[in-house]
Amino acid sequence: MNKIAIAIHGGAGQNSEFIEANYDAYLEGLKAALEQGYALLQKGSSALDVVEATVRILEDNPLFNAGKGSALNSNGKVEMDAAIMDGKSHAAGAVSMVTQVKNPISLARKVMSNTKHVHIAGYGALELAKLNQLELMPEDYFIVERQINDLKEEKSYGHGTVGCVALDASGHLASATSTGGISNSLPGRVGDSCMIGAGCYANTQCASSCTGDGELIIINVIAHRVALLMELKGMPLQAACDNVIRNIDNPINGDVGMISVDVDGNIGFSFNCDRMHRAGIDHSGNMVVDIYEKGSMLRPDK
Amino acid sequence: MNKIAIAIHGGAGQNSEFIEANYDAYLEGLKAALEQGYALLQKGSSALDVVEATVRILEDNPLFNAGKGSALNSNGKVEMDAAIMDGKSHAAGAVSMVTQVKNPISLARKVMSNTKHVHIAGYGALELAKLNQLELMPEDYFIVERQINDLKEEKSYGHGTVGCVALDASGHLASATSTGGISNSLPGRVGDSCMIGAGCYANTQCASSCTGDGELIIINVIAHRVALLMELKGMPLQAACDNVIRNIDNPINGDVGMISVDVDGNIGFSFNCDRMHRAGIDHSGNMVVDIYEKGSMLRPDK
Repeated sequence: MNKIAIAIHGGAGQNSEFIEANYDAYLEGLKAALEQGYALLQKGSSALDVVEATVRILEDNPLFNAGKGSALNSNGKVEMDAAIMDGKSHAAGAVSMVTQVKNPISLARKVMSNTKHVHIAGYGALELAKLNQLELMPEDYFIVERQINDLKEEKSYGHGTVGCVALDASGHLASATSTGGISNSLPGRVGDSCMIGAGCYANTQCASSCTGDGELIIINVIAHRVALLMELKGMPLQAACDNVIRNIDNPINGDVGMISVDVDGNIGFSFNCDRMHRAGIDHSGNMVVDIYEKGSMLRPDK
Repeated sequence: MNKIAIAIHGGAGQNSEFIEANYDAYLEGLKAALEQGYALLQKGSSALDVVEATVRILEDNPLFNAGKGSALNSNGKVEMDAAIMDGKSHAAGAVSMVTQVKNPISLARKVMSNTKHVHIAGYGALELAKLNQLELMPEDYFIVERQINDLKEEKSYGHGTVGCVALDASGHLASATSTGGISNSLPGRVGDSCMIGAGCYANTQCASSCTGDGELIIINVIAHRVALLMELKGMPLQAACDNVIRNIDNPINGDVGMISVDVDGNIGFSFNCDRMHRAGIDHSGNMVVDIYEKGSMLRPDK
């Protein structure tokens, strides 16, 4: 069989008491999603199917800020964004301001495969979900206590965006990203997760998914920049990720993180903050499941 | 005085009888907007102020597909997108699914300067417009006969997106793009014009605005790709534009065009289709106002 690889994230940002209190549950959630995605790759599923299926698992897990467990905007409402991109064809689908749809990533896939558009927002996205008979849930399905508290206390640990990148046995790459946005955002705020080139990008060389301060990810067009550092400068994957995320000469003034996979099955993880919930299995079957940096004082197992 | 330069576009795509019949009016509209923008630069206005003011003029001109004259979606409704980016600070603002707001580019500017977000869509954008006391118009203000006919006849000459890029006397660059989208699109469709890196991008080296088949501009992240060809490969501006838009080895399978200006006041125009409504004045004061390609059989003055 050809090389396969997968990586996922569940957000990057500052540490919080909630994360510390749920450390084991987060690791378990990451590992479960990773292993299910990897099993699909082993069975020969396409990268595109795998990133969608894996992100659905993370959307259904209320610990993460996507699908169930999404952040609440300043009106106390959930509005979700998601995007998916096929590295082989460069086809992409994205949705924003999504309500009611249990799995926004699957709606993004429908935009890609069933419309002539790349991005559909708001009521148009909901109409498309109904037309495609996607599962809808009442608004309170998405709302969890942690997010109610974050909004009340004007805290935002909302950086729990999820994402998945994969290389399949046919040598194709794909990326998927899904988010509930940020706590206390203005209504209608659209973040990086659904922006092709910013929070989600894939081509024939690499696939990336980003998380963190979305506005910084948008203006730095981070996922596309990593791809072009590889294409135009011949940089290896991890170096390209670090060049963008942890560049000392040209720092990003906020919390950002990214996961990437290249066509050889290498995995890149890079973040410039306390933690990035992440997991991956590379071309050699090496597994990583982690939250804090190696050596960080924040690690319970330090 | 330091070098100044400005370029504008009013869409790229196929030729049409409407364009032929209104050839002189289009040239006049382009020239008027260009000269007003240039006069502001000569008075020392910032690139950011100039691109906003110039795009407002084009939005108000019913010949172009932005503001008054916007395309109608499949529900017969106008939903507009716009983005603005400051090359100096990399700050950006964008709006999508905008209704009622006379000048969406000014709303994008408000997102940039008055919120912590980059992109606000739909009802959230309208709320922000009201909060900032931007001028609102009834829905029928935006609708013109040409667009009603295009929707009826299922034609889309809707590629009349407008944009402006400028270099000011302080050496700063900015880009602005505004559109009414495409005729007969699905409701909620969001195009490239409001996507930072796709239809609008500016940094300290160059500023670009794109037009044409928006979905192709999004998945190719065109404006950002031109910027990185300059940054990472040292390509001159026009060569970088042509490398993306007219690349024979890696063609874009649809109609696209772009305008760019670099920090030396060079102007780049590139399109791969019948026409791009365009105008510019470069560092030496050389003026171009044109629609078809030089030497094209479509030119009335051929």
